[in-house]
Amino acid sequence: MSTDTTTSPITLDRTDPEGAIAAAVARCSNWGRWGDDDVHGTLNNITAADRAYAATLVRSGRPFSLALPFDNDGPQKGWRRRSNPVHTMLDTGTDAEAGVQGFPHGLGGADDVISMPLQCSTQWDGLGHIFDHGRAWNGRRAGQVVTSDGDRVTGIETAADRMVGRGVLLDVGRTFGTDGELPDGFAITTAHLEQTIEAQGSTAAVGRGDFVLVRTGQLTRALRDGWGDYAGGAAPGLSFTTADWLRQTDIAGIVTDTWGFEVRPNEFDVAFQPLHQVAIPNMGLFIGEMWHLDDLATACTADGRYEFLLTAAPLPVTGAVGAPVNPIALR
Amino acid sequence: MSTDTTTSPITLDRTDPEGAIAAAVARCSNWGRWGDDDVHGTLNNITAADRAYAATLVRSGRPFSLALPFDNDGPQKGWRRRSNPVHTMLDTGTDAEAGVQGFPHGLGGADDVISMPLQCSTQWDGLGHIFDHGRAWNGRRAGQVVTSDGDRVTGIETAADRMVGRGVLLDVGRTFGTDGELPDGFAITTAHLEQTIEAQGSTAAVGRGDFVLVRTGQLTRALRDGWGDYAGGAAPGLSFTTADWLRQTDIAGIVTDTWGFEVRPNEFDVAFQPLHQVAIPNMGLFIGEMWHLDDLATACTADGRYEFLLTAAPLPVTGAVGAPVNPIALR
Amino acid sequence: MSTDTTTSPITLDRTDPEGAIAAAVARCSNWGRWGDDDVHGTLNNITAADRAYAATLVRSGRPFSLALPFDNDGPQKGWRRRSNPVHTMLDTGTDAEAGVQGFPHGLGGADDVISMPLQCSTQWDGLGHIFDHGRAWNGRRAGQVVTSDGDRVTGIETAADRMVGRGVLLDVGRTFGTDGELPDGFAITTAHLEQTIEAQGSTAAVGRGDFVLVRTGQLTRALRDGWGDYAGGAAPGLSFTTADWLRQTDIAGIVTDTWGFEVRPNEFDVAFQPLHQVAIPNMGLFIGEMWHLDDLATACTADGRYEFLLTAAPLPVTGAVGAPVNPIALR
Amino acid sequence: MSTDTTTSPITLDRTDPEGAIAAAVARCSNWGRWGDDDVHGTLNNITAADRAYAATLVRSGRPFSLALPFDNDGPQKGWRRRSNPVHTMLDTGTDAEAGVQGFPHGLGGADDVISMPLQCSTQWDGLGHIFDHGRAWNGRRAGQVVTSDGDRVTGIETAADRMVGRGVLLDVGRTFGTDGELPDGFAITTAHLEQTIEAQGSTAAVGRGDFVLVRTGQLTRALRDGWGDYAGGAAPGLSFTTADWLRQTDIAGIVTDTWGFEVRPNEFDVAFQPLHQVAIPNMGLFIGEMWHLDDLATACTADGRYEFLLTAAPLPVTGAVGAPVNPIALR
Repeated sequence: MSTDTTTSPITLDRTDPEGAIAAAVARCSNWGRWGDDDVHGTLNNITAADRAYAATLVRSGRPFSLALPFDNDGPQKGWRRRSNPVHTMLDTGTDAEAGVQGFPHGLGGADDVISMPLQCSTQWDGLGHIFDHGRAWNGRRAGQVVTSDGDRVTGIETAADRMVGRGVLLDVGRTFGTDGELPDGFAITTAHLEQTIEAQGSTAAVGRGDFVLVRTGQLTRALRDGWGDYAGGAAPGLSFTTADWLRQTDIAGIVTDTWGFEVRPNEFDVAFQPLHQVAIPNMGLFIGEMWHLDDLATACTADGRYEFLLTAAPLPVTGAVGAPVNPIALR
Repeated sequence: MSTDTTTSPITLDRTDPEGAIAAAVARCSNWGRWGDDDVHGTLNNITAADRAYAATLVRSGRPFSLALPFDNDGPQKGWRRRSNPVHTMLDTGTDAEAGVQGFPHGLGGADDVISMPLQCSTQWDGLGHIFDHGRAWNGRRAGQVVTSDGDRVTGIETAADRMVGRGVLLDVGRTFGTDGELPDGFAITTAHLEQTIEAQGSTAAVGRGDFVLVRTGQLTRALRDGWGDYAGGAAPGLSFTTADWLRQTDIAGIVTDTWGFEVRPNEFDVAFQPLHQVAIPNMGLFIGEMWHLDDLATACTADGRYEFLLTAAPLPVTGAVGAPVNPIALR
Repeated sequence: MSTDTTTSPITLDRTDPEGAIAAAVARCSNWGRWGDDDVHGTLNNITAADRAYAATLVRSGRPFSLALPFDNDGPQKGWRRRSNPVHTMLDTGTDAEAGVQGFPHGLGGADDVISMPLQCSTQWDGLGHIFDHGRAWNGRRAGQVVTSDGDRVTGIETAADRMVGRGVLLDVGRTFGTDGELPDGFAITTAHLEQTIEAQGSTAAVGRGDFVLVRTGQLTRALRDGWGDYAGGAAPGLSFTTADWLRQTDIAGIVTDTWGFEVRPNEFDVAFQPLHQVAIPNMGLFIGEMWHLDDLATACTADGRYEFLLTAAPLPVTGAVGAPVNPIALR
Repeated sequence: MSTDTTTSPITLDRTDPEGAIAAAVARCSNWGRWGDDDVHGTLNNITAADRAYAATLVRSGRPFSLALPFDNDGPQKGWRRRSNPVHTMLDTGTDAEAGVQGFPHGLGGADDVISMPLQCSTQWDGLGHIFDHGRAWNGRRAGQVVTSDGDRVTGIETAADRMVGRGVLLDVGRTFGTDGELPDGFAITTAHLEQTIEAQGSTAAVGRGDFVLVRTGQLTRALRDGWGDYAGGAAPGLSFTTADWLRQTDIAGIVTDTWGFEVRPNEFDVAFQPLHQVAIPNMGLFIGEMWHLDDLATACTADGRYEFLLTAAPLPVTGAVGAPVNPIALR
């Protein structure tokens, strides 16, 4: 599908992020759209019929896991106490072989625990993840929504059964990059998105209720060359100016293969993730980050089909403002 | 489908679990069946065509999350250091409102971490979870597979993209229980499974590559009455004598709404989870536990369709011997 | 030493905890006493000379550890997400013996991690642990002191080198209890404290800068009979009416062998730890809880000396509002 | 005190660490010295009289905490899953001010948890930390001592009340370094230790039962210049050749301000911490690492007294092979 935003170029005043955010919010807010009590945001854009239709997109029956491995070799470097997962064993095979476990009839066992930030790897941002001037999704006060007990209203468990629908891969990296990779700092505009859709053909059309997966190629680079500053450093990503496209398309969710979804450095002199501030608390938009899209992209390119059934069920941690996920594209 | 195991009743010598296990292993082992290097076990039973077919089972497009909420109010009581998840916040909305976060342009954020056993709630057992006399799946030495570093061979990440296929709900609780619930200690035999299939009709037929979800009703009871000894105490579950059925049906995975899949107390005088010892290291069978099947069961009963597309993608923790999962049934 | 508070009995209006707290605060507050910037509270009451003197109290050279073991068998039951410590291994001796570690020249290693609430076992409450109507120690706003980043002002690291001085054991359990144990619900008043001091003799005199260790015997009971509701249930402990004694004695810290230091149920119809509310934010008093005093008490009783050098150095977790500690009494 | 080892120089064959270790073990082993059941190793070298004497060394009454702060800004970088501590809040002052906590009479609270490797910062190595060819302290099989359950025999809790005695600071950095700092790779020999003792005078004499604290100055450098490769990289430290001195002096423990106690790179072509392999499993020697000695060193230098009462009580985590500690020197 197409929107008219590409014909009305948005110019950004780099010195005034707060003004730009306020203007974008005025154009794009979804507050009240699904009732004052709503906790589902843009997931309201998907219907059961959409999900039934999405299932018809399955052809070969090949599933793709879009998750990174969750382990100590991940991208995190301690920013705001975000570490990589620490996985430890409660019981092991070496113990079983050594005969020290005490189970009867030759049974041995292994068991394990994990400690990790919920946004350490492939993830969904929940609606309680970002606030705009002290306001959370749908206009609630941030402090009434997310306390030390977690998100009491829009915890990720409210999305436990809703992250299912039509997925569309937009391989912007392949369309506009070199060897399939956009450089760090590349701002993906609405025009880039539209042209990618056009280049990929009809199966790449984006419409209401879709999950849009944008491949930049940065993760390809990080997996090849090392994480470097992948977690929080310079990165390709969506331009702040795509806010209107994200709103007008009425998609259910937007996903990238990068740490932070939007272009970094951000497009203002002093800013931190301004598009998040418009998208999450004001639009109620679900954002997926650090998804591993390469194998899926290869398959889509091979047969020219960019749509699939996406099942990206978040681990339903009660009150979580984000969640690890192992998204499955079935095509 | 049907097997002949119901006509050859297996009698158990309660004093000899080790002998019974050895005999069942002799009948049911899959070692070498998919090559010496195999790490996928019964997931080999699913083909791409099976997955494409499973997608055609979707009718209404209604998704069901089969996960319990992951939180402090879960069933764990500390057995072998298994606690409930501890979810804590790195940043909150109260902090954002208080203006203490230091972000520019009115942005506020919340972030969180979790610490939990990988088998604390709705889960898959990995193939490295259980050993038989020091041997892991496919005959490998337990100590060469699972060390303190985790499962180096059959870690749950090897199943990241494979837990997708046809799901079948067998509501044994509804068929044989009172008010839909089997009592604790009820041993579900092959006859019970077959009769449930027959009672439920053709959509409940079980065949190669299926994920079979057995509802006992114990979780219904625990959610209503309190956890009590749900984690490790008495429970309905599969009889040790179903080992042959589990093998002969060539299913991909077996799932229950209980803590431990098999009937407890176990059917020997001194034993601990003997069916696990046959199923995991010898058959390579994937076992799901603590799945919340009630809403799905209600829907299946309502329209008489017991099959669906199941996407139960484990969180791919590298080297994990089990994994939390938010399984999605789409029907 | 002696105070006159025993001669002016305080009567409590059980329906008005807020009024009683306000009145006690008016009598006992230390706000501003050590300057507006103070972060050390009653630790200001100890001088270097006091510590040098405390060292002269050492006679036999026998050290006593006053800590409980930190492990999975502790008293916690999940109240406000307080669990027992979860200790897991990163490397083990079984792995070393199995030869899977990869170190040269026959070296093997074991290593471990822990996850635990800072107040799960033997501990110090920090000054940021409790607030009175939104105010922290010395009158600061609670929200400016303790955010999700931790205690930015009075974190326990500020007390890292100060928990050293003269310790005095008051064995109220032995003086007033049966077989050395006070019953749950027993409110220890100033009179009980004074009479214990008198019964124990001159080495039990309490004065400025001392750490006072009050043994109730409840922990003796819990270690013998099982934890039961030790964590948060009924318990012997200090009466709310001891606030004045705690203030007038100018002690450095007060310690008990109970979960919560004050008597439980609390002495008002609807209340939660009202003496904490007076003592921590208003007096700046350090409170130790769950200290294991039995062996020390036995030794003190044996030779009639109730004073010793106490070194109770908190684990200096930056920004912590409490800390685990292994207190050492050297006598 | 003095030993004759300086007169018999040990020459190392860089190609044969295993031979050198075996030879050192033959000279230095303490196996069986304190009985077959012993779990205390060199802590047996301290007597009650020694501790009483150590208390007499206190002059000014000034305590020094020798611990680093435990926080996210520590030296760890993920080696063998060792991360820095992750400290998170269960309740905060911002929550209390926001009025969302639900406590009565104006009470507010803050509470916190930590997740950390036990050897992430200032620490004691326990006797179960290192093995020599599958053998732990006193000749026990490593796999019978340290399993996934932790150290079942020599867990750090066995040392809970024993880390108290005379401490001696040997400021080798000041004696042999530039501006008080030894360069990375500097191997401290017995001669260096002896000459430091001689330079510092009679209060620096080292004898049976002492805790010897060796300052190299590397931590001074790391705190000034950034951690860099402090955790595991090149460092000054004790030469392998000091094994005999460590044994013959009959000290209770040895401590450095470095990550790994011994010089790095180690003094063999292919090796990993060979002196640990001699000292821990064979001598039963307790090793402290990452102790912050600068303030203490300044004070010792100022008045020429290098001895003090050391109370370095490990957090008694049951079964731990190492422990965080806040050591207190009182002088």
